[in-house]
Amino acid sequence: MTTVVYDNIGQLVTNDPASGEGPLGLVRNASLVTDGSCVLSVGPAGQIADERIDVEGRAVIPGFVDSHSHLVFAGDRAEEFASRMAGTPYAAGGIRDTVAATAAATDADLRRIVSARRAEAFRAGITTIEIKSGYGLTPNAEARALHLARELTDDTTYLGAHVVPVAFAGRADDYVALVCGEMLDAAVAARARFVDVFCEVGAFDADQSREVLRAGIDAGLIPKIHANQLGQGPGVALAVEMGCASADHCTHLSSADVDALASSTTVATLLPAADFSTRQPYADARRLLDAGATVALATNCNPGSSNTTSMSFCIALAVREMHMTADEALQAATIGGAAALRRTDVGRLSTGSPADLVVLDAPSHLHLVYRPGVPLIHTVVQSSTPR
Amino acid sequence: MTTVVYDNIGQLVTNDPASGEGPLGLVRNASLVTDGSCVLSVGPAGQIADERIDVEGRAVIPGFVDSHSHLVFAGDRAEEFASRMAGTPYAAGGIRDTVAATAAATDADLRRIVSARRAEAFRAGITTIEIKSGYGLTPNAEARALHLARELTDDTTYLGAHVVPVAFAGRADDYVALVCGEMLDAAVAARARFVDVFCEVGAFDADQSREVLRAGIDAGLIPKIHANQLGQGPGVALAVEMGCASADHCTHLSSADVDALASSTTVATLLPAADFSTRQPYADARRLLDAGATVALATNCNPGSSNTTSMSFCIALAVREMHMTADEALQAATIGGAAALRRTDVGRLSTGSPADLVVLDAPSHLHLVYRPGVPLIHTVVQSSTPR
Repeated sequence: MTTVVYDNIGQLVTNDPASGEGPLGLVRNASLVTDGSCVLSVGPAGQIADERIDVEGRAVIPGFVDSHSHLVFAGDRAEEFASRMAGTPYAAGGIRDTVAATAAATDADLRRIVSARRAEAFRAGITTIEIKSGYGLTPNAEARALHLARELTDDTTYLGAHVVPVAFAGRADDYVALVCGEMLDAAVAARARFVDVFCEVGAFDADQSREVLRAGIDAGLIPKIHANQLGQGPGVALAVEMGCASADHCTHLSSADVDALASSTTVATLLPAADFSTRQPYADARRLLDAGATVALATNCNPGSSNTTSMSFCIALAVREMHMTADEALQAATIGGAAALRRTDVGRLSTGSPADLVVLDAPSHLHLVYRPGVPLIHTVVQSSTPR
Repeated sequence: MTTVVYDNIGQLVTNDPASGEGPLGLVRNASLVTDGSCVLSVGPAGQIADERIDVEGRAVIPGFVDSHSHLVFAGDRAEEFASRMAGTPYAAGGIRDTVAATAAATDADLRRIVSARRAEAFRAGITTIEIKSGYGLTPNAEARALHLARELTDDTTYLGAHVVPVAFAGRADDYVALVCGEMLDAAVAARARFVDVFCEVGAFDADQSREVLRAGIDAGLIPKIHANQLGQGPGVALAVEMGCASADHCTHLSSADVDALASSTTVATLLPAADFSTRQPYADARRLLDAGATVALATNCNPGSSNTTSMSFCIALAVREMHMTADEALQAATIGGAAALRRTDVGRLSTGSPADLVVLDAPSHLHLVYRPGVPLIHTVVQSSTPR
């Protein structure tokens, strides 16, 4: 066993209150020893190990946990995006465009595209990632997406219920039956960990969403939901009713929704880059945090509403627009994301944690907000095997 | 003379309507030949030269022209920033803190810090930069800042009138006399190109600002002004009256201000990252553009209100928040910035222009907005000598 010490850390965020100051478990002038896969110890600068990496006073934080991404897609919707921003009509567009582009890509091309996107996310500091299907919408195509995603992470999500495909126009219930039947069987065979549904006007209503989640739960999957993105609706209440790991978006919440989240184990996953890119109002993180809800931040990387892998950008937006503190935003992007994936191993840097960490080109994590847009990810270390 | 061809350009922005489609002068499947310092020709892919650089279908744009930066400073105000974002009081802070930190830095340290910051801006695609003094506030300290800035660019700006220093509390007019006298002489000796003043409640009023600009003009400097950042005021009217190259900020404008800018050669320089970092409303670029004003985008890189070198971030904000189109925002960050510096050489890529260009890790400049936060600057080429 070769041990490694990251030494001369100006400021170490452990997310373990027992290891340092405050909720971030902050240690100044720190060092961190790993055995190449796990954290062995956190202590003052100058600990000894077989190999020494001097980070020269930089800050070290846990690797980001991105609990909501749609990485498996082909094609580019930049023109649609630019039209939306300019307020001009755009004839085509939408999820169905991406479904067509993804179907048209060969397996080899799609694998290359998705791997490159995962590599980009890694360079952005994301050491744990959830990846959804949802641009397939047939049993075979959803299984193909989930198999590809499974090559990159264990945290894969079956999102057959992303939108009603053109072939089922006017027959949404028939599509739900497929999603809950043959397509679910294919997702289980492709070892999906989560089941997800887009519960929104224009996508799936409460009853359809409940049916999808129930079928997924019965098949052994953990439920998640896209809820309350475009307006108030039944999604968050359903999330709590069904014991979802997370309700994602949460842009339009009633007081009852906030109370329900606060008194549940369902994480409110906020996606500020989607609010940015669709010119929606921002979710009110302050209200959720003040009520006692657990909040996660995720990139929602997808070709339509949030084509970014930059968790730093999400953190800066969450502080500017959602009134989180910089500390809260960092936690939401690390242990908050872990909670949304029902994981307690990642998102922290204390003894026994995987040594998944980011060295920032900055003396403090505050710079992720103080220096918006500046590439501050100096080094990303993933010591654990992605699972 | 060795010629170089950048070949296989998916999409080339020339900013020269005679060279391609629309105001951007867009050429698809292009190549660009340089002699190592200037553009020799723009044409279809496959032009021949001594050396060939294959950009593999990526987009190429003119290097960014950042017409408003305060790079010459030492110290860090991240804690002040985080307190402001959290809405909690912060005892110290402000420009005077930075003045003290800058004064405390040795020449060697300050040169190292400022050079590193310029290098960061270069990696962000900024090939032409304006740099202001303004954290000195004594004749010697302002001259020191201008000399340091002059090592990096010819576009240096004397901003002795940044704030009334503590030593002149209650004696602002005495400070203005110094700014217009001995300190101006030192700035001229340090070869400043522009004179600037912060015209705002709490800084300098219209009469004081006019006096500073008049003295600078009489000494051969080109006037610029910080105007209408925190509220409506006389700054923009004064900018037009004095023939300023630019009025910078323009967050709070009356109809008369908009009309005055539209019918003048004064560029409205917008600084969205400052509006972001101070949680101010955003300047209304749409209104200015629709009225016919020339708009520039700049980073305003400074330790208090906008600690970023990311022009890409500014462009994305300008589209989301200021309702510019992606094309307008790119132009504002290139030829718009050049206009604010009274330069016609930079900010474009047509025959005879300096070969200052950015290869994007994207097929189109739209990705600067479509993929916010993602580091898309693949290669930066500065063929011209910085002037």
